[in-house]
Amino acid sequence: MQWSFAKRIASLNISIIREILKLLEKGEVISFAGGIPAAELFPLAQLRAVTDKVMREEGKEALQYSITEGYPPLRRFLAERLRRKGIKAGIDNILITNGSQQALDLIGKIFLDPGDWIITEQPTYLGALQAFGFYQAEFCGLAIDDEGMRVELLARAIERVNPRLIYVLPNFQNPAGVTLSLRRRSQLAQLALARGIPLVEDDPYGELRYRGEHLPPLKALADENTILLGTISKIITPGHRLGWVVAPEAVIKKLVMAKQAADLHTNSFSQRVIYRYCEQGYLDEYIATLCSHYSRKMQAMLEAMQSYFPPEVEWTRPEGGLFLWVSLPAGLSSSEILPAAIDRGVAFVPGVAFSPDRRSDNSMRLSFSSASFAQIDTGIKKLGQVLKDWLAKTHSANTT
Amino acid sequence: MQWSFAKRIASLNISIIREILKLLEKGEVISFAGGIPAAELFPLAQLRAVTDKVMREEGKEALQYSITEGYPPLRRFLAERLRRKGIKAGIDNILITNGSQQALDLIGKIFLDPGDWIITEQPTYLGALQAFGFYQAEFCGLAIDDEGMRVELLARAIERVNPRLIYVLPNFQNPAGVTLSLRRRSQLAQLALARGIPLVEDDPYGELRYRGEHLPPLKALADENTILLGTISKIITPGHRLGWVVAPEAVIKKLVMAKQAADLHTNSFSQRVIYRYCEQGYLDEYIATLCSHYSRKMQAMLEAMQSYFPPEVEWTRPEGGLFLWVSLPAGLSSSEILPAAIDRGVAFVPGVAFSPDRRSDNSMRLSFSSASFAQIDTGIKKLGQVLKDWLAKTHSANTT
Repeated sequence: MQWSFAKRIASLNISIIREILKLLEKGEVISFAGGIPAAELFPLAQLRAVTDKVMREEGKEALQYSITEGYPPLRRFLAERLRRKGIKAGIDNILITNGSQQALDLIGKIFLDPGDWIITEQPTYLGALQAFGFYQAEFCGLAIDDEGMRVELLARAIERVNPRLIYVLPNFQNPAGVTLSLRRRSQLAQLALARGIPLVEDDPYGELRYRGEHLPPLKALADENTILLGTISKIITPGHRLGWVVAPEAVIKKLVMAKQAADLHTNSFSQRVIYRYCEQGYLDEYIATLCSHYSRKMQAMLEAMQSYFPPEVEWTRPEGGLFLWVSLPAGLSSSEILPAAIDRGVAFVPGVAFSPDRRSDNSMRLSFSSASFAQIDTGIKKLGQVLKDWLAKTHSANTT
Repeated sequence: MQWSFAKRIASLNISIIREILKLLEKGEVISFAGGIPAAELFPLAQLRAVTDKVMREEGKEALQYSITEGYPPLRRFLAERLRRKGIKAGIDNILITNGSQQALDLIGKIFLDPGDWIITEQPTYLGALQAFGFYQAEFCGLAIDDEGMRVELLARAIERVNPRLIYVLPNFQNPAGVTLSLRRRSQLAQLALARGIPLVEDDPYGELRYRGEHLPPLKALADENTILLGTISKIITPGHRLGWVVAPEAVIKKLVMAKQAADLHTNSFSQRVIYRYCEQGYLDEYIATLCSHYSRKMQAMLEAMQSYFPPEVEWTRPEGGLFLWVSLPAGLSSSEILPAAIDRGVAFVPGVAFSPDRRSDNSMRLSFSSASFAQIDTGIKKLGQVLKDWLAKTHSANTT
């Protein structure tokens, strides 16, 4: 049998991260690659108690089909929580999804025709490139600096590509860790409002702030244009696959139609378990625990980098989230360095994975969330040595 | 803000079943509309025990991210179970999905370009029409009779539309309840093999056989061409949203890429809970309980129809599954009758919902799975009266 597939998948490559994970299976490698939460912190006892309560008290409902929009009490809880951040949302503005990755897929499905342009940060979330890539989108990546997307480049980019969507991760961006400043949030919101362009605000890490003040979400600054994505994956558990979309009703209605065709509805059982967990008031305390823990891990990694990395290398100093972004001298390719690093026993994700133009590769993403303190020290030391060796080799090649 | 959406959703209508469910909220209506399992039969005690076991013994793993392909022990369990049915599958031939609805979406995503044709039964599963409709497929519905799809019409249909896929529900088809005969299975398999056309075999109900012998799956007759879909929704619980695809590795690889972009992976927790349930050996006994119960309900509905329905009306007598299919005299529209039925306190799904050409409407789907025996008797009596009244009205209009 010769299988022939749709045009949309002809150009797709297998995920770089998946390939790295396969390499990791081969031996004892310290991985800073995945952005996965620290399993040792999962609130197991509390989740076990609420899980059993759901089975005991509402098992029949939790095991039955449910509505596409999502479990109403969970949506109500989220709506109230959003109000604290200055977002006016009722339950009709919220759709529960299988993690926020599904929200990206559904947004692609309802908005994107082949060849439509999306303006993103450069670098941006790999999963968004994959989800929108399936709908044959074209990407226009805007450079970032310490204040996030360089919004002063936006007006010209809009003229050039006439984008269908602007996609942005304003808080502790994946992969670079940077946060969009208040000034730029206002500029971005105003521009989106003035030009009538939908803003997709992806915020999986916003609650994980380790220093500084929370900044207003784009959804609060440009409510009618903004589609906000959230998830429990980084603040409770990714295994239950729960995310949500907050958007005007006109958009939610289309997303509901798309979700109904895509998988009918999100896991009824998981929605009730997570609702019970939230309703018991556990969430804020748990987020405080996470922030304290991740903040110390980030600090440990930053200090190790200061000690072990060669001076030619630069990196971000985020105020929250799970990622650090390392910039190598121009001309170095982190994809080429990766096999040597894995041989030495340490892994990262090369920057090209997050590059909308699939070119920029003199950078790497490091995650500190799941490694131990000892692994952070040892792993950064190993990586520093790999980088020093590589720089020496390149230097010697250049001078020969 | 003026929202503008992708071309693919311009022609979509809101689901007929959703609209019916909204009507049902208004009062005390006996519903034969949804194909939902009997909640009173859910194996609550056993599921509660294995759920707690997962939290106690493997909570960290169950709450963490996991691989896109699905939990390997669950895939291994399924592969062994498939072998009993004559299907040779290893775990690399299996992808776990969010219910089999997601499998339909992913199949659409990797196979369908706009305008591609799919040959289906007429009538066919509404959710398949929705999933494939999002990829702008065209449908060619082949008539059915008591032996399922009229396969003798297939060769000419293939000539006419050059289909990208053939989609078929061979066992106790949704909505009509009919089963594809062995002779036709062989013919269909041979034709698909000879022409190199992928067969999508959707089998959510195959385990729910109340009389007669199990027939070989198409996957066993045309292994290399067939993509088989299964689900726990009708045999354990739909709330956990677990389904699977069985296909050649070349297809699984593309589906995995599509699923990774669509939602990363299926709920880790649910996969482990359901695996534990299956591994404890509960499944076959529970299926026997379901068959005994549903068989009696189906019998009760068939007897009530015999007593209360007017003689002009015909219906199927399935060997399993959840649905009966009622054919009205030509010219009657079940969509027009539905509001009167709901006024009288009984609901069904009009046939047009399942019609690939969105025309055929002198039919209705009745589900007996979730109504009580008393509701079956009362509801069918009410529906019989509605039909008699409608026929009398039509007759009197015609003779005036």
